[in-house]
Amino acid sequence: MEKLEQQLQFLLELDKQKEIVRQTYLADGSRKEGDAEHAWHLAVMAFLLADYANEKIDVLKTIKMVLLHDVIEIDAGDTYAYDTEGLKTKKDREIKAADRIYGMLPEEQKTEYRALWEEFEARETPEAKFARTLDNVQPILLNHASGGRSWREHEVKKSQVMGRNAKTHEGSEILWEHIKTIIEKNVEMGNLADE
Amino acid sequence: MEKLEQQLQFLLELDKQKEIVRQTYLADGSRKEGDAEHAWHLAVMAFLLADYANEKIDVLKTIKMVLLHDVIEIDAGDTYAYDTEGLKTKKDREIKAADRIYGMLPEEQKTEYRALWEEFEARETPEAKFARTLDNVQPILLNHASGGRSWREHEVKKSQVMGRNAKTHEGSEILWEHIKTIIEKNVEMGNLADE
Repeated sequence: MEKLEQQLQFLLELDKQKEIVRQTYLADGSRKEGDAEHAWHLAVMAFLLADYANEKIDVLKTIKMVLLHDVIEIDAGDTYAYDTEGLKTKKDREIKAADRIYGMLPEEQKTEYRALWEEFEARETPEAKFARTLDNVQPILLNHASGGRSWREHEVKKSQVMGRNAKTHEGSEILWEHIKTIIEKNVEMGNLADE
Repeated sequence: MEKLEQQLQFLLELDKQKEIVRQTYLADGSRKEGDAEHAWHLAVMAFLLADYANEKIDVLKTIKMVLLHDVIEIDAGDTYAYDTEGLKTKKDREIKAADRIYGMLPEEQKTEYRALWEEFEARETPEAKFARTLDNVQPILLNHASGGRSWREHEVKKSQVMGRNAKTHEGSEILWEHIKTIIEKNVEMGNLADE
């Protein structure tokens, strides 16, 4: 049962993701969201909103992708979307993390899950495009619900959000159309700076 | 786009699950686990450990089931497994919660997700049996990792854990065999009372 032992060790290692805090606040603004909570929310979105994907997606594959997409942050930490310095070293830190964490798994699953993470990062397949769209859409929904709290704290500009979301439409034109109206509302309300 | 609005409202409603605190501590004992974190962990287990299910399971269906299985706790709260009084009113509270929360969804998804929750509760299909097994196994893994903290705080007895897990073998004999050895270890270490 060495294989089962490896899998259970991996599951306990993943537990650390619950303690990685993101910059986004919960919808009610009471506290910041953790990585595992974010991944759970994305996984629900992956099947709830699957019909809005531009291309037909394999829903199970997309869910696996989003459930594990932030595993590397156990070692590499969460890099805020608008942290220019942190973003410079992000890739190197994440590759080292992937080597160690996926390396805990039995061979077949190591290969499969690592490949899913690389696919997510490469953003080329229908599943990866949709997963990346959800990963961008979810914090915008939460930011909007919390009165733009995280945006205001970081003095985020509309141009930064639009830049960060330049490819969000690639996963779902329908969701992106809706998100654009939310971004506009937040500019009107002063939650996002319109320079 | 009324349908999309309903779905996004449902997603924001689900956000409240992040704030429902369970009795189980994280593996490192630093704090108690939230409902959304628990559901995320179960969803990863559903595909990581699928080969150990007694019967062949539809993995996607099982994942949907575990991701949404605690949604009713938004209204009904988390009832601790060994809270005898709370367990008496649990079912009524949960049915009212299901009516309201699944009722927020477009018709087709309302029917599908509500049925998945009822299937989980009924514990008759291979997917439900495996999902219920994971739901029982995960807190035992965390309790063991945290030195039996939650068990000790509630003075839980081995017989209570065995009673609660009388059907855990129905989803996976292999996982149950492993979990039994963990329970024994915790009796030896004094984390579970052996009356």
